[in-house]
Amino acid sequence: MENLGKHAILNGELIASTEALLPVWEKEFLYGFGVYESLKIIASHPIYLKEHLERLFFSAAGLDLRHSFKEEEIGQWLQALIEKDSIEEATVRILLMGGIESRLFITAEPLLTYPESFYSAGVKGAIYHGERYLPRYKSCSLLLNYIALRHASSQGAFEALLVDRHGLILEGTRTNIFACEGQKIFTAPKTLVLEGVTRHKIIGGIKELGYELVYEAPRLDEVLGGRFSELFISSTSMGALPIAQVEGVKFKAPFTITNTLHSLVRTWERDTLP
Amino acid sequence: MENLGKHAILNGELIASTEALLPVWEKEFLYGFGVYESLKIIASHPIYLKEHLERLFFSAAGLDLRHSFKEEEIGQWLQALIEKDSIEEATVRILLMGGIESRLFITAEPLLTYPESFYSAGVKGAIYHGERYLPRYKSCSLLLNYIALRHASSQGAFEALLVDRHGLILEGTRTNIFACEGQKIFTAPKTLVLEGVTRHKIIGGIKELGYELVYEAPRLDEVLGGRFSELFISSTSMGALPIAQVEGVKFKAPFTITNTLHSLVRTWERDTLP
Repeated sequence: MENLGKHAILNGELIASTEALLPVWEKEFLYGFGVYESLKIIASHPIYLKEHLERLFFSAAGLDLRHSFKEEEIGQWLQALIEKDSIEEATVRILLMGGIESRLFITAEPLLTYPESFYSAGVKGAIYHGERYLPRYKSCSLLLNYIALRHASSQGAFEALLVDRHGLILEGTRTNIFACEGQKIFTAPKTLVLEGVTRHKIIGGIKELGYELVYEAPRLDEVLGGRFSELFISSTSMGALPIAQVEGVKFKAPFTITNTLHSLVRTWERDTLP
Repeated sequence: MENLGKHAILNGELIASTEALLPVWEKEFLYGFGVYESLKIIASHPIYLKEHLERLFFSAAGLDLRHSFKEEEIGQWLQALIEKDSIEEATVRILLMGGIESRLFITAEPLLTYPESFYSAGVKGAIYHGERYLPRYKSCSLLLNYIALRHASSQGAFEALLVDRHGLILEGTRTNIFACEGQKIFTAPKTLVLEGVTRHKIIGGIKELGYELVYEAPRLDEVLGGRFSELFISSTSMGALPIAQVEGVKFKAPFTITNTLHSLVRTWERDTLP
């Protein structure tokens, strides 16, 4: 019997999820001095756990957020949570907050999924001008992402595409971005964006399928000018999800490259299950 | 008998301060979708309460953080906290977190003060290149400030001066910045920075004392080139505090303009007491 969401982990201890709290007066809380990961549990198995923990530690190191947690023990704590609440499917968040005493929380929520129509018909994108601070690290500095996503939602869009001062579309608020032109697929170099775990898998898929990967972020003016045949976003929850339109510019279904990469990534995920 | 820190306010209710908590799984928590104010209590009286509440609401509106709180009731809640814990002196934080249900916390800590030597000898400044997101609003998007201040501390400096892409020193991590050249005093225009309550008072003092106020942010290269005779930072806690050196460039005591403005601002504060 699944009890998803009943419990959480704090520094290795099982706690009631209602106790996964932080004091509002703490400096590190107010300043958002933390890093996190979201990962999927499928068939009671965490998908790409090692990659997510490596990135959590990469983000912490990037912020010089010091802690004494070990990858292996975090994996064991997650396993204990899965067993305690008999979790079969979930989206799990691992949050590492800095401070004099760093704290690590693990919480679980229902698995985030999207309707099949999103993949067949594509979703609407919106444009937001702004640059993330320390974009390579998955930190709690997310106000830009929050406001950009709300801006997108107010336009009936599913995701905001973040455009930097040079007119480059670097990433989404919770996604990486790819653009297709013939056999070439463009995406920002990893020095400028959060290197998503799924982005990394898609890059593997692009190479496997014989497309040419170009580490250049698509330019907004070129996207609007019709240079690209497909534009898609990627994340752990979404896999590869096609953009159907942005600022009135439409991309036509079927999104062959996007859907092929999506299927490949999902197949690889399933292949990791024991 | 003062019981500073025993209680806090949540949405108008007195609670134990240990209950001033937020759940880590909430989106608005993770995304830092909140605004806040820090103000002083002196002789059981909140200093410039109206100005702080106006700015809190200005910040909330700037982020489109919707809420149903009223300035007047927040003032009453703060008064209830002051009476409950018999607070004489304190630094109080008012935190307004957005979300489906917005929440307002009031917490109190010992009054933040600085040694007299900071004012007579000045403090060390450090340089940090970075731009705040939505700088006019006092939001919880503070990771840049946290990291910049830690960078300063690691160099034995008291404050980091944030330099934008154009080489302008716009503000500190928790302060506004002013630079003096003869009878002219330079500071960033309010469109580019957080308009501090104390900054506003200092601007009044500059005019009262007959100096010429110039709304231009001091350039880093000009600061390092020796253009300015005094450089100072301002905040609610600090008043006006002189910078003695930055990147090896020294400013000589006595910091006449800074200290005169500081005294004036402190006098005005005392004059607001009933």
